[in-house]
Amino acid sequence: MKLYVIGIGPGGEEQMTLRAVRALEQCDCVAGYGLYLDLIDSLIQGKERIQTGMTREVDRCTAARDAALAGHTVAVISSGDAGIYGMAGLMFEVCESHPEIEIEVIPGITAASSGGAVLGAPLTNDFAVVSLSNLLTPWETIEKRLHAAAAGDFCLCLYNPASKRRTDHLQKACDILLSERAPETPCGIVRNIGREGEAFTLTTLGALRDTNVDMLTTVFIGNSQTKVINGHLVTPRGYHGV
Amino acid sequence: MKLYVIGIGPGGEEQMTLRAVRALEQCDCVAGYGLYLDLIDSLIQGKERIQTGMTREVDRCTAARDAALAGHTVAVISSGDAGIYGMAGLMFEVCESHPEIEIEVIPGITAASSGGAVLGAPLTNDFAVVSLSNLLTPWETIEKRLHAAAAGDFCLCLYNPASKRRTDHLQKACDILLSERAPETPCGIVRNIGREGEAFTLTTLGALRDTNVDMLTTVFIGNSQTKVINGHLVTPRGYHGV
Repeated sequence: MKLYVIGIGPGGEEQMTLRAVRALEQCDCVAGYGLYLDLIDSLIQGKERIQTGMTREVDRCTAARDAALAGHTVAVISSGDAGIYGMAGLMFEVCESHPEIEIEVIPGITAASSGGAVLGAPLTNDFAVVSLSNLLTPWETIEKRLHAAAAGDFCLCLYNPASKRRTDHLQKACDILLSERAPETPCGIVRNIGREGEAFTLTTLGALRDTNVDMLTTVFIGNSQTKVINGHLVTPRGYHGV
Repeated sequence: MKLYVIGIGPGGEEQMTLRAVRALEQCDCVAGYGLYLDLIDSLIQGKERIQTGMTREVDRCTAARDAALAGHTVAVISSGDAGIYGMAGLMFEVCESHPEIEIEVIPGITAASSGGAVLGAPLTNDFAVVSLSNLLTPWETIEKRLHAAAAGDFCLCLYNPASKRRTDHLQKACDILLSERAPETPCGIVRNIGREGEAFTLTTLGALRDTNVDMLTTVFIGNSQTKVINGHLVTPRGYHGV
């Protein structure tokens, strides 16, 4: 029995890979957060749906596993990449005692790639990806990682920079980075990547600290080499003779 | 005038997004490393080609810019994602004095996503991406980043872990990580991701140190939570009640 965990990329069908579309065609049952299923509505007509709220991931994956055990070919849908803050890891965990379920992960375009492309090329050199949500990771661990990323002069891509209840995490993150990086460090934010209402702003680390963001936003913080070229955020990789 | 920098993902057409395919259709001239152009040969029939060797990136991007200035609609092709160790950053640099060239970056599936999917879900929590090639980044900087990633308990994805001339970089990287992480830490390597001959191996950090890899390999190193579930490399994100 087969279960696909499919990353659909940032938006609709146009940003999925052909491989993801074909895997979805094999399935008769789809599980996912409602907003993400809506983005691919035209591809899942007539398929059974397992739909749960944003924070009911364990329930959703358990229901998807049970549907597979009951004989369905199931697709678990993640936005972005299924393996990067997506459902792939949890699916393996939930299916641990059911090795007869063959899980195939189909990668998708994650926000580090899609948001970076909107801004220019901020992640052309070594980078770190950190989620500022402390729902699943203790805030102390997140702070430790931000300190480490700052010490390593990594470009940073921050997922889940805020939610309705977490409004000061980005400010705290910027303060940690400002201990190692200049306030003039170029940064960018992208909202609604690849969806209706996509918008981006270039800013600086000092100004980012006081910028309001929400859970639909992805934040990019440059390293010591990052610059703005013709309105785009670019981290040179180090080519000579340019 | 328009210039696209297109990430084609790990392999052929099936792993490109529809958006990337459509952008390529708009172009009458393509620039890229020969191996990558071969992967999408059926999509670029009849288009003019700017083809250079692996280490001639500046020449290739300059030629692509000049073709755009001469009136061509140009696609610069990167494997994986155009913005992650791809050509996007260099294209912005090369076009700095030609703001009349509108550069659109089309993201693709990078090896962190595609290789991670082959192994399971190693990057489900915070991670860092580091290239072990010191062609463009001083080795001291790479070592600094590896130390920082180790201190932050980041999962790690290593690009360019070796070449014919750099055979000991992975060993040095493992030694740095072993100063903070147990030799039993689960790791994985994937070779020829998404292409003919794709192969993967699960291993441990201690054994990885003495593993031979080449430039077609991507390496994944777990954090303190990473485990092997039914033959897959999985970093739990921290969901309760699984």
